[in-house]
Amino acid sequence: MYSSKYLELLITELEKLPSIGLKSAQRLALHLLRVPKEDALRLADAIRAVRERVGFCSTCGNFSETDPCALCGDPRRDPRVLCVVEQPVDVLAFERTGQFGGRYHVLGGALSPLEGTSPEQLRIRELLSRLRGSEIQEVILATNPNVNGEATALYLSKLLTPLGVRVTRIARGVPMGSDLEYSDQVTLARALEGRRDVD
Amino acid sequence: MYSSKYLELLITELEKLPSIGLKSAQRLALHLLRVPKEDALRLADAIRAVRERVGFCSTCGNFSETDPCALCGDPRRDPRVLCVVEQPVDVLAFERTGQFGGRYHVLGGALSPLEGTSPEQLRIRELLSRLRGSEIQEVILATNPNVNGEATALYLSKLLTPLGVRVTRIARGVPMGSDLEYSDQVTLARALEGRRDVD
Repeated sequence: MYSSKYLELLITELEKLPSIGLKSAQRLALHLLRVPKEDALRLADAIRAVRERVGFCSTCGNFSETDPCALCGDPRRDPRVLCVVEQPVDVLAFERTGQFGGRYHVLGGALSPLEGTSPEQLRIRELLSRLRGSEIQEVILATNPNVNGEATALYLSKLLTPLGVRVTRIARGVPMGSDLEYSDQVTLARALEGRRDVD
Repeated sequence: MYSSKYLELLITELEKLPSIGLKSAQRLALHLLRVPKEDALRLADAIRAVRERVGFCSTCGNFSETDPCALCGDPRRDPRVLCVVEQPVDVLAFERTGQFGGRYHVLGGALSPLEGTSPEQLRIRELLSRLRGSEIQEVILATNPNVNGEATALYLSKLLTPLGVRVTRIARGVPMGSDLEYSDQVTLARALEGRRDVD
């Protein structure tokens, strides 16, 4: 039982967030009651703002309130390299590395016969028209290293290679910091297959 | 770099929450962009509501928008047993057990000579006036089992025992599901000292 109905309501809403259980939701709710009021309201306003202002970039398909988005419109990003990903979350993952200076294209998913996702449901037509007459010299296929992602990469490579653009796939192998002992056989086979000469 | 300024702003605010790192904040922000708009706005409104409507119960000191709070005002809760805790988060912990049907008193902290917390800064005067002429027969001292919490329990027991009320302290011992091997010596000593006859 809760001393406050509004506190209970907030805990209920926080608990709906992914990987937030009851205890975490309670801790977060009490935190929001303890911090300066402006701080809590800033979070509330930030949630409202993303939902009321953010749409999609018509170039890359990522979330944006401007068109083109801040990434597509940034002249410092290399327009010759395009990284094709499934979802916006993958763009964030590559940006966290700080190692990619090109641009992105968000497909909005991966091909999946089982879930009924066909090429027309992904932003492939947009990818083709983006390539046409552009400066893009390399397309990096960065779909997920699972069945659907691999199928999508294969499909795209067959579609793009005839256009004369360089098509590459991110390396699949043993993840850094892992133990070979616990690597699954498909990953280890890939790591062998993709081996490179030591400089 | 982010495709959207508003997305970036939301991630910044989410990252300020306790135990939410950059990756979690990014995942939560994208989740809030993906769910139905009403769901995201319900969370924003719940945050705003707790900060604009929730105050304190003048009886127990817990968060509440009503006075007395839902707990103090519930006739089904036993008015004869009072559980004294340091913070609202402790009330939530006891309520999660579903094993306590009495009422609470929130001190707002614990005595701490180092941090300069003296009895006047805790809700002890309110506790005394609450006891005076009330139905309360037992006061359970449920302050934290650390230096400050123990000192506070000792201070309160000396203050309350002369009033003729039964004063108890929650049991301290080895936590359920733990390994004795890894228990610290103070906890093990307490577990021995507090041993009880097996029925």
